[in-house]
Amino acid sequence: MTVGPVTRVRKQPLINRSTGRTLAAVSQLLRQTLQAIRPADESVRAEVRARLDRKTKPIGALGRLEDLAVSLAVARQDPAPSVARKVIVVAGADHGCAGAGVSAYPREVTAQMMLNFAAGGAAINVIGESVGADVRVLDVGVLGDWERPEAIDDRRIRPGTANLAEGPAMTRDNALAAIETGIRFAQELAGEGYDVVGLGDMGIGNTTPSSAITAVLTGLDVEAVTGRGTGVDDDGLRRKVAVIKSALDRGAALQDPVDVLAEVGGLEIGALAGIALGAAAERMLIVCDGFITTAALALAHGLNPSCVDHAVAAHRSVEVGHAALHELIGLNPYLDLTLRLGEGTGGALLMPLLDAAVAVLERMATFESAGVSEKEV
Amino acid sequence: MTVGPVTRVRKQPLINRSTGRTLAAVSQLLRQTLQAIRPADESVRAEVRARLDRKTKPIGALGRLEDLAVSLAVARQDPAPSVARKVIVVAGADHGCAGAGVSAYPREVTAQMMLNFAAGGAAINVIGESVGADVRVLDVGVLGDWERPEAIDDRRIRPGTANLAEGPAMTRDNALAAIETGIRFAQELAGEGYDVVGLGDMGIGNTTPSSAITAVLTGLDVEAVTGRGTGVDDDGLRRKVAVIKSALDRGAALQDPVDVLAEVGGLEIGALAGIALGAAAERMLIVCDGFITTAALALAHGLNPSCVDHAVAAHRSVEVGHAALHELIGLNPYLDLTLRLGEGTGGALLMPLLDAAVAVLERMATFESAGVSEKEV
Repeated sequence: MTVGPVTRVRKQPLINRSTGRTLAAVSQLLRQTLQAIRPADESVRAEVRARLDRKTKPIGALGRLEDLAVSLAVARQDPAPSVARKVIVVAGADHGCAGAGVSAYPREVTAQMMLNFAAGGAAINVIGESVGADVRVLDVGVLGDWERPEAIDDRRIRPGTANLAEGPAMTRDNALAAIETGIRFAQELAGEGYDVVGLGDMGIGNTTPSSAITAVLTGLDVEAVTGRGTGVDDDGLRRKVAVIKSALDRGAALQDPVDVLAEVGGLEIGALAGIALGAAAERMLIVCDGFITTAALALAHGLNPSCVDHAVAAHRSVEVGHAALHELIGLNPYLDLTLRLGEGTGGALLMPLLDAAVAVLERMATFESAGVSEKEV
Repeated sequence: MTVGPVTRVRKQPLINRSTGRTLAAVSQLLRQTLQAIRPADESVRAEVRARLDRKTKPIGALGRLEDLAVSLAVARQDPAPSVARKVIVVAGADHGCAGAGVSAYPREVTAQMMLNFAAGGAAINVIGESVGADVRVLDVGVLGDWERPEAIDDRRIRPGTANLAEGPAMTRDNALAAIETGIRFAQELAGEGYDVVGLGDMGIGNTTPSSAITAVLTGLDVEAVTGRGTGVDDDGLRRKVAVIKSALDRGAALQDPVDVLAEVGGLEIGALAGIALGAAAERMLIVCDGFITTAALALAHGLNPSCVDHAVAAHRSVEVGHAALHELIGLNPYLDLTLRLGEGTGGALLMPLLDAAVAVLERMATFESAGVSEKEV
């Protein structure tokens, strides 16, 4: 399939979302991971709903907190899931398009913020600590040969992407390497005993590739899925749209989500897609954050739709393309707090609701155990 | 002012919301409390906004979490507020109208649930524990002479209300006693060092008086503010509307919110209004929960509108009248989780966001301290 100019709402996405035949040229690690991801076990869903319905409350009265308990149990494939150990991974990389005036912040902020994460001063650090989640920082392509402190896990694939307005953001090999880096990292986190993995991102300019990915996967107009990111003005927004249209107008043949990632994506987006796939294969719960991490999850969904059965969408951000991605992958976000920071902060804010959902499931009394009369009308 | 039949949307509320002249017949405790409540200090608001804008994030990028930090600081009248000590008060009472088929549950469930709270098995117990909030249980009018265990604070005013369809729910003296009980309880909580007070309710049938209060205070149609509570069917909903209309059709003279509470309210609603007033006077943050607690806060707001400057609305429930109350008192809820349980559960779920907001305010780095470049476009 060939990508043509996107000028209006499309009925069809620009790539073939069926997997199987399109994944000839992937590594054994990616292939094994995709095969290891299991779809939702409906018996777990039914078992958890039945347990919730015996608790001392009207049926369904805890609303979406009950949905969260069910989603968690389905994700973990365990009707009595633990969420004791939580981690948020902030994957960082630079973007060639950041030089094209698509961000309100200078490109060096990516590296500066990585150091801020390492020093514990960023929003995700203080919120992560507040909600009892560890924070891990992953460098998959931040510019500059500055010495990475120990708190930054240095797994650089290349020094940032190329400007997607002028050519592919990276090679297919780079894209596969980014995904595989994420898969391996998720496997390590599972080995460390984590139950829940929040996805977080850092990369000045990265709403531009995320909007490009969204346009390709949903078939929607570029304008409909491109927002102001960290806060560009009208001119900046016009530049973002022009950059994305330049990329799509090249008409590159995009056979699968790996091609999409290579053509218009970002290194941290690839790593986050890989973390999602690896976490799903390991049956950790994936907590998706804002627009960038949801674009990554949508790529993972394109590679194996069942990975979304292991994920929850933490929140709906103000970024305009976010809702289209949620609709595409079939996740209904829990919070709507007008966030637009990224870093995994929205996912972190969902963590206490996961704890509360497990508390309800584990410890709340039933009508029988508490001697409470049931509904009569 | 006289209450007439409510058959369509009114432009004016059914009582005079200006206070002052209408509060001749109140106690010294209530009068002193109303006088002690201070309106928002705008300098605190500005100071906190300025502090947030120096943090390493785009201005406003943490969205409503920043609003929550500001509201908290304004409520506490402290630009560096603590939320270390949190309590949720579940006030319980019975309702005469519960015998009129307005609830899906039998009336004895109020007492059974009080015992469930005391035993630690209810949703508010397990969620409260999960979010680090203490839970206190207050009996201001539950039926039955069963022995109250120590975990139930017995401050009964009368054994439930009368059926508001047939006459006033209680006397004005009862209503004042309920409010004063709440004020005293809030003073005790302040003395124990609590920073944050969540409001919770228990009382089979209590969405009916809450809808009646909402109809009176907002002037909206009874049908527009009456919902299914814990889950009544269509017949039950029709009975609720009929019960409320019977009460309003009496045309009782309602001079102030105390009269409204006496005519169509509930004992726990009065106590919760008193807790809100007492907490505001003591500059604790009030965390309002669902429809019943918001009806209580709306009565408190009618007595002194500034008490709402010390409150946040935790969530928007599915109960139809809830949004009208939020609009009336000018609070924008933070969560929308389709909850309809009460007990203070929605407020409990907001508590971790308060912790996160304080973490951002206290511990997040600034652009200067972290050496991060600022916005350039």
